[in-house]
Amino acid sequence: MRLMAYLDHAATTPMLEEALEAYASAARSVGNPSSLHAAGRSARRLVEESRERIAAALGARPSEVIFTSGGTESDNLATKGVFWAQRASSLNRTRVIASAVEHHAVLDAVDWLGKHEGAVADLLPVDQQGRVDPERLAERIARYRDEIAVISVQWANNEVGTVQPIHALARLAADAGIPFHTDAVQAVGQIPVDFAASGAAALTVTGHKLGGPVGVGALLLGRDVPCTPLLHGGGQERDVRSGTLDTAGVAAFAVAVESAVKGREDYAARVGELRDELVQRVRAAVPDAILNGDPADRLPGNAHFSFPGCEGDALLLLLDAQGVFCSTGSACSAGVAQPSHVLLAMGADDDRARSSLRFTLGHTSTIDDVDALLAALPGAVERARRATAWKTPR
Amino acid sequence: MRLMAYLDHAATTPMLEEALEAYASAARSVGNPSSLHAAGRSARRLVEESRERIAAALGARPSEVIFTSGGTESDNLATKGVFWAQRASSLNRTRVIASAVEHHAVLDAVDWLGKHEGAVADLLPVDQQGRVDPERLAERIARYRDEIAVISVQWANNEVGTVQPIHALARLAADAGIPFHTDAVQAVGQIPVDFAASGAAALTVTGHKLGGPVGVGALLLGRDVPCTPLLHGGGQERDVRSGTLDTAGVAAFAVAVESAVKGREDYAARVGELRDELVQRVRAAVPDAILNGDPADRLPGNAHFSFPGCEGDALLLLLDAQGVFCSTGSACSAGVAQPSHVLLAMGADDDRARSSLRFTLGHTSTIDDVDALLAALPGAVERARRATAWKTPR
Repeated sequence: MRLMAYLDHAATTPMLEEALEAYASAARSVGNPSSLHAAGRSARRLVEESRERIAAALGARPSEVIFTSGGTESDNLATKGVFWAQRASSLNRTRVIASAVEHHAVLDAVDWLGKHEGAVADLLPVDQQGRVDPERLAERIARYRDEIAVISVQWANNEVGTVQPIHALARLAADAGIPFHTDAVQAVGQIPVDFAASGAAALTVTGHKLGGPVGVGALLLGRDVPCTPLLHGGGQERDVRSGTLDTAGVAAFAVAVESAVKGREDYAARVGELRDELVQRVRAAVPDAILNGDPADRLPGNAHFSFPGCEGDALLLLLDAQGVFCSTGSACSAGVAQPSHVLLAMGADDDRARSSLRFTLGHTSTIDDVDALLAALPGAVERARRATAWKTPR
Repeated sequence: MRLMAYLDHAATTPMLEEALEAYASAARSVGNPSSLHAAGRSARRLVEESRERIAAALGARPSEVIFTSGGTESDNLATKGVFWAQRASSLNRTRVIASAVEHHAVLDAVDWLGKHEGAVADLLPVDQQGRVDPERLAERIARYRDEIAVISVQWANNEVGTVQPIHALARLAADAGIPFHTDAVQAVGQIPVDFAASGAAALTVTGHKLGGPVGVGALLLGRDVPCTPLLHGGGQERDVRSGTLDTAGVAAFAVAVESAVKGREDYAARVGELRDELVQRVRAAVPDAILNGDPADRLPGNAHFSFPGCEGDALLLLLDAQGVFCSTGSACSAGVAQPSHVLLAMGADDDRARSSLRFTLGHTSTIDDVDALLAALPGAVERARRATAWKTPR
């Protein structure tokens, strides 16, 4: 029997059985939550109960939960929508600030605003661990205070797992009256996330990173934060996001959010311990492997290494052949033959960036997964090095 | 036992059991279709097979299927995305033409382009049956040919069910080199829809109107039609629509589209016959009821009446109390205290527009539903009339 080890939970994690049951149960009833008849009202009730559960789990008010199709849409809505609304209230507010290590859903939205909508795209640098120094943001705010439309910094990085000083960053923005958005897609269920306590104006969360369905997420959006819709139409979701509400998806999402948040401490302890063992054994097996990201203040399920002398892609495929599934970076840029913008922003050179692999553990992970990785890794690294050496004479 | 009759299939129709099974089966596997390892490739295979099935059912090439979160997103993408792309290639192309009876997902997107992005919003009038006369479009094209960025006319109306002369309209646009979009959300599975044969450049379809999941749809988009993304990020879907692909939702959507298209003729015959009986019996029971929309060339499941002297909302609630579920118009504008823009565009006055109800049949409908409606309707109309007469002395 071939071992199979799924070490790519940050790309997507299996849907919880109870979330799937909630989906199926809701999908077997009919009713559009916008319809006025009893079938519609029953669907609406399930949506609103789900909204309340999600709000309670994330420290938000129910009216602050805007359902979307997931992380990418929430990130785009928060950056473009808040930018448009801010610029409409003051033509001067054209600067959009984001960290250089954001997910592409934020970075590419900001880039588009710059190229297409007259925004000034302004990327905050990070240190070698991938962390934004609040001092850098304070400087930007001091200099450009009245020109900044929106600031976006992720809660934790999806590649190297580094946790950002979100409370400090959000406080700086709030004190200057600037809307602050944080992509917490990787953070929720892994580390404590409380929207109200964070001081953020907007927060992205999605279902399929925490045991819920793909295609369902939310933007938590303060009641007083103007936001121009990306999707116009029926006026659902406070008129900020039109489209028929996915009752079944929303119900499943609520089950998953609640479960992830309630189980977070146990999860973090158990998965963090597994991850520490993985890190220790990878270092023992490949002594020159470099752990990327903050060694301590990182997501419990994340381990990210550079393997000098290896091509990450080659290593990924060699491990895949042994039934070990991992990633060279974000799944959303998999197949793109470019070194990770995250590692480059952290000061890595091209070679180091290209030699990297991300291993992410999750709710179904066991020690068997770590064993399978360690059984396959030394041979794979050796083969990958021979291939690289053959291609690139040293 | 209380009869319950669901006559609101145009708002949302029950998910087919086989679509739900496809969803659950895919949701029980893990893998992000963008991941390179075997689990990701397996998800990708399921997505691509689903894409091929949808393309084959709708007369499109697989590469023309862009998965989205549903009808509202597809409509917004087609209008805003094509407008932006056209204007980028020629600053002169600022005119956006849509019929006056479009769904709000098109109308409000066009309105926003006018107010926010410098577009000229130009609405095509319709006749008393709700039909766009191709002559009107030909005149617009003759006059504004080089200024038109995109034209959007729905395949069939979501309220009154009138089918538009899509082939003639699309041909006029194609001959002038102008991208033509059609919202076929209500048409697919009801009447023949073939993307290639239609001559349209873009076509909206969604899952939950034809037995698939809510929150999953597609924009069919010709390979040579430039379209600026609404959602930037990982570059999925030809770089036109970023976001993690919802493998389970897409698989369920494909099952539903295939089933709806394969079963269309039988469906249309069976449901059309039920609808004809419903119309005949409503007219017999309420002789002054007025059937709105084209009497012949309409969706097989649609019956739409004005009941003179009644408030549609009151009638809806009285029927609801008898377990009969219908709609005053689009579910997406339910609760909005405004007369239907569709009926007003057809020349109805406010009173007639406000006195309307839509009954829509679907795949689970039987004669029992018609019986239940007719058992409740005469009493409800009488009560609604008394209430209106009391409120508005004549």
